[in-house]
Amino acid sequence: MSRFAYVNGRFKRHSAATVSIEDRGMQFADGVYEVVGVHHGKLFGMEDHLNRLERSLSSLQIPMPMSRKALSLLFERIKRKNLIENGAIYLQITRGIAPRNHLFPTNCRPSIILTALRRDAYDKEKVLQGTKVITLPDLRWKRCDIKSISLLPNVLAKEEAKGKGALEAWLIDDQDLVTEGTSSNAWIVTQEGELITRYLGNEILGGITRKVLLKISQAGKLKITERAFSKEEAYQAKEAFLTSTGTFIRPVVQIDDHKIGDGKTGALTKELLDWYETYLNEESDGT
Amino acid sequence: MSRFAYVNGRFKRHSAATVSIEDRGMQFADGVYEVVGVHHGKLFGMEDHLNRLERSLSSLQIPMPMSRKALSLLFERIKRKNLIENGAIYLQITRGIAPRNHLFPTNCRPSIILTALRRDAYDKEKVLQGTKVITLPDLRWKRCDIKSISLLPNVLAKEEAKGKGALEAWLIDDQDLVTEGTSSNAWIVTQEGELITRYLGNEILGGITRKVLLKISQAGKLKITERAFSKEEAYQAKEAFLTSTGTFIRPVVQIDDHKIGDGKTGALTKELLDWYETYLNEESDGT
Repeated sequence: MSRFAYVNGRFKRHSAATVSIEDRGMQFADGVYEVVGVHHGKLFGMEDHLNRLERSLSSLQIPMPMSRKALSLLFERIKRKNLIENGAIYLQITRGIAPRNHLFPTNCRPSIILTALRRDAYDKEKVLQGTKVITLPDLRWKRCDIKSISLLPNVLAKEEAKGKGALEAWLIDDQDLVTEGTSSNAWIVTQEGELITRYLGNEILGGITRKVLLKISQAGKLKITERAFSKEEAYQAKEAFLTSTGTFIRPVVQIDDHKIGDGKTGALTKELLDWYETYLNEESDGT
Repeated sequence: MSRFAYVNGRFKRHSAATVSIEDRGMQFADGVYEVVGVHHGKLFGMEDHLNRLERSLSSLQIPMPMSRKALSLLFERIKRKNLIENGAIYLQITRGIAPRNHLFPTNCRPSIILTALRRDAYDKEKVLQGTKVITLPDLRWKRCDIKSISLLPNVLAKEEAKGKGALEAWLIDDQDLVTEGTSSNAWIVTQEGELITRYLGNEILGGITRKVLLKISQAGKLKITERAFSKEEAYQAKEAFLTSTGTFIRPVVQIDDHKIGDGKTGALTKELLDWYETYLNEESDGT
């Protein structure tokens, strides 16, 4: 856990970092967030995160509380103050503090919170063992493209996954198609070798790691098909994995009771892991 | 606004009432709430509110933080400390404070907040003028029967209603049926005089005022049909109104561009308003 948090203009000891009970984040889930990875001391994908943040804020008609440059500097400061070498910086922006009323308050300044999270170094051997996911009905609201703090359905689904020995739940829409995980994007490789992830739309969040894979694919020979796939198709997949800022690329070797491929991390998934590792290191080494 | 708030065991001046930035209400909308009306100095429908609270908490696997009796006493104390004669007491319970992680934390005590709201006396003449509602797609999650603080879609819809000169938005599901308002239940009276409100299910919250009308109807000659009605049926209705703890019964005289009946509060709606007023006064006069 971080020692220092930034809250509305001040750096505070984490234990003393508080917000008003009438912050609209607390009463209405009226806010957004970003989690930016820190790899070898460097913030990763900052431009993409800021782009997504601006899009989320704009969707909720919350003004950007400061310039991108000022916000980037805050990220650097909270990272340094907490001596984060590998981990993540969490940013949360809400509409602000106002007497409780559903309607947007007038003359309300957005609340800004930044915290830091230290992570153990990436354990590739453990990651390669693969993980299990379960499927659950997607109960979330219809604007999951906005990275809002309205995360209660995600919390409940992830807890249910844990109860069934799984790391993540893949959420299934009314057409029996996979949308995404509770905090990650979902990918499969078909028996024919087609690499598939759902197209962007209101049903899923445009993940930054998802975007990196698309970038890598555009540069190389890899072909990615952006289309919805069904739960049944996922069961029959040759390989499967999930992506997120926190987990990078995580091989999936079981979905519900179905073993994926031979129950071990697939060849293409392994290759992508290597590519992604190289990409991360190159990006962190750059200036 | 109330002068004193209750936060996790202490009464505090409202301006000094804060919660940790890592309260799960703030980061995950992981909590529930109730708003209990105060009428002539008396808390109204306490048993029903406590029943619903217990149901909401249990759905999220959050333990009831104290006995019903202790919680009722807190409601009384916050009401008295803030000298509320007419208004409401707001209660919010979240899963508690823990380092950010979707999964339920272990050893976490629920956070409890109570605040009080003073209201102007009920202005029946104004209410009888009726109000406008608009219809919007229901973008909310699929467990609206839980009174959670995951209210972002409600906030956005109510703000859009205000922008169009309406008090409330009636939300429309995929089958073109009305679910409910952003913070109220929806009712119509057909040209044949049938009084309709949607049946209870995961799509709507079981309103306390809705329940009171059902009780009244069981006692008297009034017949209420609990079934879903379409947007088109609402447009063609003879009368319409909405119910909530905050607004009691509010006549609806226009839905989108459609005048309801002759554009004035309907006869049955007026009668219900009188019945409800009598009921409120009788209940508040009781011990």
